[in-house]
Amino acid sequence: MLKDDLIKRFKVTDGEGFKLSDIDPDDTGGLDLDKDGAKELLATGVKRLHGLQERLYAEGRWAVLIVLQAMDAAGKDGTIEHVMSGINPQGCEVTSFKAPSTVELRHDFLWRTTCALPQRGHIGIFNRSYYEEVLVARVHEEVLEKQNLPPELVKDDIWNERFDSIRDFERHLARNGVVVLKFFLHLSKGEQRRRLLERIDEPDKNWKFDAGDLAERKRWPDYMNAYEEAIAGTATKHAPWYVVPADNKWFSRLVVAAAIAEKLEELDPQFPKLDDAARTAMHRARAELAGAGNDPDGKKHKS
Amino acid sequence: MLKDDLIKRFKVTDGEGFKLSDIDPDDTGGLDLDKDGAKELLATGVKRLHGLQERLYAEGRWAVLIVLQAMDAAGKDGTIEHVMSGINPQGCEVTSFKAPSTVELRHDFLWRTTCALPQRGHIGIFNRSYYEEVLVARVHEEVLEKQNLPPELVKDDIWNERFDSIRDFERHLARNGVVVLKFFLHLSKGEQRRRLLERIDEPDKNWKFDAGDLAERKRWPDYMNAYEEAIAGTATKHAPWYVVPADNKWFSRLVVAAAIAEKLEELDPQFPKLDDAARTAMHRARAELAGAGNDPDGKKHKS
Repeated sequence: MLKDDLIKRFKVTDGEGFKLSDIDPDDTGGLDLDKDGAKELLATGVKRLHGLQERLYAEGRWAVLIVLQAMDAAGKDGTIEHVMSGINPQGCEVTSFKAPSTVELRHDFLWRTTCALPQRGHIGIFNRSYYEEVLVARVHEEVLEKQNLPPELVKDDIWNERFDSIRDFERHLARNGVVVLKFFLHLSKGEQRRRLLERIDEPDKNWKFDAGDLAERKRWPDYMNAYEEAIAGTATKHAPWYVVPADNKWFSRLVVAAAIAEKLEELDPQFPKLDDAARTAMHRARAELAGAGNDPDGKKHKS
Repeated sequence: MLKDDLIKRFKVTDGEGFKLSDIDPDDTGGLDLDKDGAKELLATGVKRLHGLQERLYAEGRWAVLIVLQAMDAAGKDGTIEHVMSGINPQGCEVTSFKAPSTVELRHDFLWRTTCALPQRGHIGIFNRSYYEEVLVARVHEEVLEKQNLPPELVKDDIWNERFDSIRDFERHLARNGVVVLKFFLHLSKGEQRRRLLERIDEPDKNWKFDAGDLAERKRWPDYMNAYEEAIAGTATKHAPWYVVPADNKWFSRLVVAAAIAEKLEELDPQFPKLDDAARTAMHRARAELAGAGNDPDGKKHKS
């Protein structure tokens, strides 16, 4: 299992002075694992998550929202697949936010994601999220224009206003039992190049290739600035960012699994306990079910 | 038309020191109208609203959210019917919030109303709203309990926290082009009694009678306290409350119509203007449609 102080290194709870360059995408926290070793360690983390989620679901008081943000090919889909596959899907929903629909564009920028928030007892995973509203909308002017805001509201400090809105929104969620964990899978530009080439060169991965990714890649420095400011502007104690080194998939998955498990352990959800009345009713039900009159075959149980 | 300074008297943009007792439910602003006079004046207001809404819809940049709150029989339904009936329903949705569903209870207290927010160009009317979360939920402990919040989050200052959340939320809306107008139809306890008796004594109104209303009536002082604190805690410049004297239906309707119209006039929505390219395309379309080759009967127009 990953040590908690390792996770702490990537956890940002106060954005002041945050620099993306302080975290090396190739960092593996001093761990040097082969494929099998990493697999084994992840399996332990996933098992731990499974048990915690069962209790979260049974208790039904906390909701957990996991926000995944990253550049293309950083491993969002793979993280969801490998970290969350051990979890009962009845209590876990993934929502992928692609280009917004017409109706979504005609609402405020937090609207479509709010409607997809997880209910109590559930884990909701946002594959991209409302953070796109201060990332892609910031890098591409035309995205903001499509939102058709009244021109007098599109001021120079619109991005700071949006950070304010997000901070307020996440504080509201925290106060109302929705735990928010935000992950930025921090990939290097060089590793992205390698992974995109792989998608082109390996026929089984061709389906993942999107020519549009190259255009986004050309805006790399703009995206890094936008990410840095977004993380700096919205990292708080109640809704921390985890800036996860993502050049090594095995390592980023370990960190994500451990960070979620750590938070769930802190919540320490419990199976609901029956009160006396419910317990009495249950015992009465037991007696009724066990009574000979209820034996479907009309016979006594073998003793 | 009602004079703007009359509306101003009932508009609360700063909750500090607000007292419900400062506004007399029987106030008619010095107006003394007979039924026909009131009808005529309202018709003028409704016509004014109709024209403004058409432009709001065509421009498609602002959304308007109208929140209606009141004790039973204060005239919410009648206000919606008489004030908003002149409006094109294509750009106007009314959402009535009754007892929450199981899924709604399992989300944060702003969730279900947020999902029902109006889109740009539309007027959304909330018949009851998220304010019930600091009114009925405050007066009736069991309503809050049903929300199944983690116990450590249900603190003594939960109502102030909820006011904070609401203020943050409404500021976010204001910054993103959703104009929020909140109306409290301020009814006296005596006039409520009269109207409830009417519902019982007049067979055509029996369907409106709900025995539960009497139980709520018994909690009158608690509700008045809750309303006073809610209005004091959430009245702001960008999301004002209108505390509308409601003992005289004709007067409360006039005030609501005038307040909405005043705000829409301030927004001053405009029919979108075509740019040069669109204008050229339109003229080309005109020529094509008007050309003899496109006459469906193959005949020339009569000159």
